[in-house]
Amino acid sequence: MRTSIDCIPCFVRQTLEAARFVSDYPSVHEGVLREILRCLASLDLDRSPPFVGQMIHRRLRELTGNPDPYRDAKKRHNRLALHLLPELKELVRKSDDPLKASVLLAITGNVIDLGAHGDLTEDDVRSSIARTFSEPFHIDIEHLRKEIGKASNILYLADNAGEIVFDRLLIEELPAERVIVAVRGGPVINDAVMCDAQAAGLQDLVRLVSNGSDAPGTILDDCSLEFQSAYKNADLVIAKGQGNYETLSSEEKNIFFLFKIKCETVASHTGFKRGTNVLTRVSRSRGQPEGATTGE
Amino acid sequence: MRTSIDCIPCFVRQTLEAARFVSDYPSVHEGVLREILRCLASLDLDRSPPFVGQMIHRRLRELTGNPDPYRDAKKRHNRLALHLLPELKELVRKSDDPLKASVLLAITGNVIDLGAHGDLTEDDVRSSIARTFSEPFHIDIEHLRKEIGKASNILYLADNAGEIVFDRLLIEELPAERVIVAVRGGPVINDAVMCDAQAAGLQDLVRLVSNGSDAPGTILDDCSLEFQSAYKNADLVIAKGQGNYETLSSEEKNIFFLFKIKCETVASHTGFKRGTNVLTRVSRSRGQPEGATTGE
Repeated sequence: MRTSIDCIPCFVRQTLEAARFVSDYPSVHEGVLREILRCLASLDLDRSPPFVGQMIHRRLRELTGNPDPYRDAKKRHNRLALHLLPELKELVRKSDDPLKASVLLAITGNVIDLGAHGDLTEDDVRSSIARTFSEPFHIDIEHLRKEIGKASNILYLADNAGEIVFDRLLIEELPAERVIVAVRGGPVINDAVMCDAQAAGLQDLVRLVSNGSDAPGTILDDCSLEFQSAYKNADLVIAKGQGNYETLSSEEKNIFFLFKIKCETVASHTGFKRGTNVLTRVSRSRGQPEGATTGE
Repeated sequence: MRTSIDCIPCFVRQTLEAARFVSDYPSVHEGVLREILRCLASLDLDRSPPFVGQMIHRRLRELTGNPDPYRDAKKRHNRLALHLLPELKELVRKSDDPLKASVLLAITGNVIDLGAHGDLTEDDVRSSIARTFSEPFHIDIEHLRKEIGKASNILYLADNAGEIVFDRLLIEELPAERVIVAVRGGPVINDAVMCDAQAAGLQDLVRLVSNGSDAPGTILDDCSLEFQSAYKNADLVIAKGQGNYETLSSEEKNIFFLFKIKCETVASHTGFKRGTNVLTRVSRSRGQPEGATTGE
């Protein structure tokens, strides 16, 4: 997905918010904002939005000298989600359709986006779960079920810390011996890296791989050879979060995207309304997610 | 008032909105956005926010070759407000305190900011009037009444087209022979220029002056000598709209600012909550509007 000029005001706002999250110094806020404005002025719009996210957060880490400014937040979100895990497992276990329930809970993890809410409580998460089950969604569950049955190699692309504990519910519904879970190769915002996958206990269930990149999405050229090989060998990819959609939506690959549509640009790109929770595959012929109708 | 770095994301958003308002060409939208990003990257934050507005809209007029892209919108808003004028006059006439009623209606004109709503209807305006009378306000009316009684030369700084018809109600409550009304010297956004003041019929009531500048506020250095002289001679200034506040708030002058607090930056600068309708004078000793308490 190309970057839309509608993404630009959003990047500027995000830069300032992130600068304030990672530093108390106004000179850092102003400095990084001016640098990003300069970069955006000559941005190649053929790049996907996570390319800009990568650039912003690399510069913030350099300027603050902090290699992982969101580490404490990520730990906190993992702990919060792990505390809820037994309750969430029970929800899946009791469900008529555990695969569908685990997909909806995995989306809840994406809806919450724990990184954006430093003061999130367990009650907030429980409300989000209730909302996710009642909110508009487009879940192509039978199609996914069929593809899971057929696939020899399933690659699951994780998104954020905290959220990755919710992903575990869906990962447990997959045939473990055929699954690889990939996380970001280095810290960027609150995205999950290897230690977050380990905090979620995934190493006891499936093979884990780092993608070798610090982009908040999956920019294939920027990923390690190990990841590229896992990606190439996969005959089913489950990609979590909007960043993975933004970077992989035009790939000729059997990818199911699992996320909440969080902005108008992605809404317009997918053909689903903003706020919709989706599990969808991009149709090669239409170039849009299956099941989407513009203005739906 | 200096520009806050919080104004930067807002400028970027406004640039894109304005570009789309004045042109149908994506190349113009992208071109002006890139130019403004470059300018913002090295912006002198000691400048007031309307300096940036002036820069954005000058460039948009150059790129589109249209010297007044908001002309039709301004005409439409003048017509709409003029159609309501008899009704508004009646509201003032019937009021126990016509000065206060006319001040509140003048603020309504600012609240509506007709430029931002191409499809505004008379019913919308009537709802806005009702809201203005019930919304939180800080109207230092007795102070203004006293200053009007004392002043030999009153300078009224208008803000937008359409809104200037609402201003007429307040202007009619002032001693006409001692009043000069100033408008922008050239088109910028939907700000009122001389023909808008004339559309509102103000030339039959008071002396009109153009300020000689195309900034969406009053940048004194950028104004004509004629305006500067009127400003110097005034012993009471009534300044309408947030742009005039942003450019004149640190002046050592007897200025009453009359506007709705439309953003968090001005809220924080004034000490009034966002959304408050104010008629206030900046206290020389406190450097904040009289009556404001931070966090009020």
